[in-house]
Amino acid sequence: MTADSPTPSLAHLLTLEGLPRAQLEALLDRAAHYADGHDDRAVLAGTAVCTLFFEPSTRTRLSFQLAAQRLGADVLNFDVSTSSTRKGETARDTLRTIEAMGVRGFIIRHQDDGAVAALAEAAAPGTALVNAGDGRSAHPTQGLLDMLTLRQAKGADFSGLKVLIVGDVKHSRVARSDLHALHALGTGEVRVCGPRALLPDDATLDGCTVSQDLDAALEGVDAIMMLRLQRERMDEGLVASIDEYHRDYGLDARRLARARPDALVMHPGPINRGIEITDEVADGPQSLVLRQVSNGVAARMAVLEALLGGGPARS
Amino acid sequence: MTADSPTPSLAHLLTLEGLPRAQLEALLDRAAHYADGHDDRAVLAGTAVCTLFFEPSTRTRLSFQLAAQRLGADVLNFDVSTSSTRKGETARDTLRTIEAMGVRGFIIRHQDDGAVAALAEAAAPGTALVNAGDGRSAHPTQGLLDMLTLRQAKGADFSGLKVLIVGDVKHSRVARSDLHALHALGTGEVRVCGPRALLPDDATLDGCTVSQDLDAALEGVDAIMMLRLQRERMDEGLVASIDEYHRDYGLDARRLARARPDALVMHPGPINRGIEITDEVADGPQSLVLRQVSNGVAARMAVLEALLGGGPARS
Amino acid sequence: MTADSPTPSLAHLLTLEGLPRAQLEALLDRAAHYADGHDDRAVLAGTAVCTLFFEPSTRTRLSFQLAAQRLGADVLNFDVSTSSTRKGETARDTLRTIEAMGVRGFIIRHQDDGAVAALAEAAAPGTALVNAGDGRSAHPTQGLLDMLTLRQAKGADFSGLKVLIVGDVKHSRVARSDLHALHALGTGEVRVCGPRALLPDDATLDGCTVSQDLDAALEGVDAIMMLRLQRERMDEGLVASIDEYHRDYGLDARRLARARPDALVMHPGPINRGIEITDEVADGPQSLVLRQVSNGVAARMAVLEALLGGGPARS
Repeated sequence: MTADSPTPSLAHLLTLEGLPRAQLEALLDRAAHYADGHDDRAVLAGTAVCTLFFEPSTRTRLSFQLAAQRLGADVLNFDVSTSSTRKGETARDTLRTIEAMGVRGFIIRHQDDGAVAALAEAAAPGTALVNAGDGRSAHPTQGLLDMLTLRQAKGADFSGLKVLIVGDVKHSRVARSDLHALHALGTGEVRVCGPRALLPDDATLDGCTVSQDLDAALEGVDAIMMLRLQRERMDEGLVASIDEYHRDYGLDARRLARARPDALVMHPGPINRGIEITDEVADGPQSLVLRQVSNGVAARMAVLEALLGGGPARS
Repeated sequence: MTADSPTPSLAHLLTLEGLPRAQLEALLDRAAHYADGHDDRAVLAGTAVCTLFFEPSTRTRLSFQLAAQRLGADVLNFDVSTSSTRKGETARDTLRTIEAMGVRGFIIRHQDDGAVAALAEAAAPGTALVNAGDGRSAHPTQGLLDMLTLRQAKGADFSGLKVLIVGDVKHSRVARSDLHALHALGTGEVRVCGPRALLPDDATLDGCTVSQDLDAALEGVDAIMMLRLQRERMDEGLVASIDEYHRDYGLDARRLARARPDALVMHPGPINRGIEITDEVADGPQSLVLRQVSNGVAARMAVLEALLGGGPARS
Repeated sequence: MTADSPTPSLAHLLTLEGLPRAQLEALLDRAAHYADGHDDRAVLAGTAVCTLFFEPSTRTRLSFQLAAQRLGADVLNFDVSTSSTRKGETARDTLRTIEAMGVRGFIIRHQDDGAVAALAEAAAPGTALVNAGDGRSAHPTQGLLDMLTLRQAKGADFSGLKVLIVGDVKHSRVARSDLHALHALGTGEVRVCGPRALLPDDATLDGCTVSQDLDAALEGVDAIMMLRLQRERMDEGLVASIDEYHRDYGLDARRLARARPDALVMHPGPINRGIEITDEVADGPQSLVLRQVSNGVAARMAVLEALLGGGPARS
């Protein structure tokens, strides 16, 4: 397997959990190839792909749409959340109906954990589903693009890296997919920092160094992955106030100085400026936030190719 | 006329009523060709087509969009029902404006009977309109796809067939287009069964055998076309309750056994599972519900080709 | 520079104000070329363009979308006004994010004056922005299409032309862009007529003949550009009533007879029939309303080509 050849075929991409390291690295190799600016409109020419979003996200939809277009696919958008036409139809019937129209790839976002995996069971052979985020569970293409971003800056060997994840891990599908990938790639040390109320109390953090002290957690790290703080956490009483959160878990230039001088700052976006991260850091030289966005298209191209790239005749 | 050549040109497709049998069969021949998986992106290359939906329907829009893409058209979507931009513009001016932009084909859904035909009068020569459903009047591409589905299973000669339509014929444009097509194709016997309050008292049912007894109506039929029950019928007092409707007019496996053993079960979707039709029947071996969906794309390809296939230079 | 070659490169098209006459005429030459029906899908092949509308306008979006498609671009639509996904993201971050995905052209509508120019400052080199209307300030492609329409009918030398603009100039970005272009092209006389409350009291009308008497203002003019009356003007008390507005500033056949016999009637649409303009005039032989719409696609093709036509490798 080299960066010049597609990755071995997968049926669906539902999660990075349990994905063999070789397959993960093959996807990253291929994503790196596309991140170099390669397009290939023959890969999915004549293949129809549908974004099926039960929870809206224009940013993620656009990224997948661009990835599919650069591979030559026809892209359809179905924003189920705003559609007045479901008329009580089940998600399974919606999927099967669009599948029956000849759509071979589905990019699905859903508010419920496991919803995309459940739909995958209903799909016909030859149909591929990409989980574009389900509940708090997984957002595998975000995990891939984050790993690609780390690799570009730090090389493919993660064994010497210290990576810190900061914020609301409990409710974050991004964090879960990042953790799956970081562990699979043999990252030297994975640290997690956030308020106790926003950290999961299950096996999610196994193998991580957990703390509530951001200053200490930042010492010597190679990369910091900041998570988005959802406003709902305030309403739920899990966070006392924005100001307090920023004071304890916000990243500013002073704090960033505790990390290695070449430490990377990452955020899945959209950033709450002045909350998770100050403008100075978000727009500073160590920030890879926009690089992550660029890599998102490349990572999604690699995924769509791996799932669908055999063309309409693929069985 | 063979399946290998396009059908003779039509100006618009507004209804199946009065369409000559030869033209209907030519469209079905061509639809069968596309149902075999043929694509031809040259047919509408450089031609712009716009879906113009005054009443939302994502499912129908996607089907037409896929059909147009497989013929190489550029597809634009204008969901008038959710647009904040009509600003009091008349439907005629909306049509003429988009037409002036160079769009040659319009796929129009409208809540009012006759609205698409009225718009066709306003269209310039060379512009083609497809009625994607108007009021209770017509849904001609649904009629075509249903006939294609029947033909695939039962052959092109309908003279020996007994076909039963069940449910709310009164408010159904699907039923009207199916009836027009079934009569035009010389179907042996057309039966209609539904509660009196949901059957039309005009000429719609001329030539049909009408009853309120589903068990009796099912005896020996070759195909059963179930109609969707709209929730509004409850609010309007036309149906007492969902349970009662299902008891009297729902199709379950026990009832289906009264039909011929190879009888087909059809439904235009989306299905209200457990109301018109049980899961067992909907997902059973006699159900052609998903085949209908697949055929919808093929039928719409045939229609778009017949209307627009001469290319931009067609006068 | 001839009509056969693209116009010299611009970074963005934010306004027609201050655009050199030569550049304006080069754009119009190129627009005329496209108005003759030429397509060239190679111009923007492989280039992604995004409509980014903070204020909805389906009509303008469709026109730009068709223009981009006829040049071979991939077009994405982001209706920010109805998106539930901005999640507090700033407009600058939205732009930079989509830019980072590889989108090179943005077509932006915004309710605030100067908003598009402010976004242009945030854009990376190589990214081109087209102002598709900002506040009351500018709508440069509308100005271009109006000039193209005038040129087609009256020739390229505007020095002998009398052009009258009627209505709510104060709140109209269309009027401002038309005025910039008319002055730049050396129009013989520019007249403006409207109620005092709807005329600007700044430098906008410098060089124009201003009046409140439509009958007099119409005498001998070659072209009349009617402006749309927004309903909000009633609510704001700037216009007493629709009837009164129509009586004083509406164009009917009787009034039109005061203009030159070959005078052109223009309106940016959508028309409030019976308010700015009667049906008889809107649909009469002197009306160029639909021609303006057609020319809009051609003018936008010229603009997109000028901004982005060098292809992905353009620096």
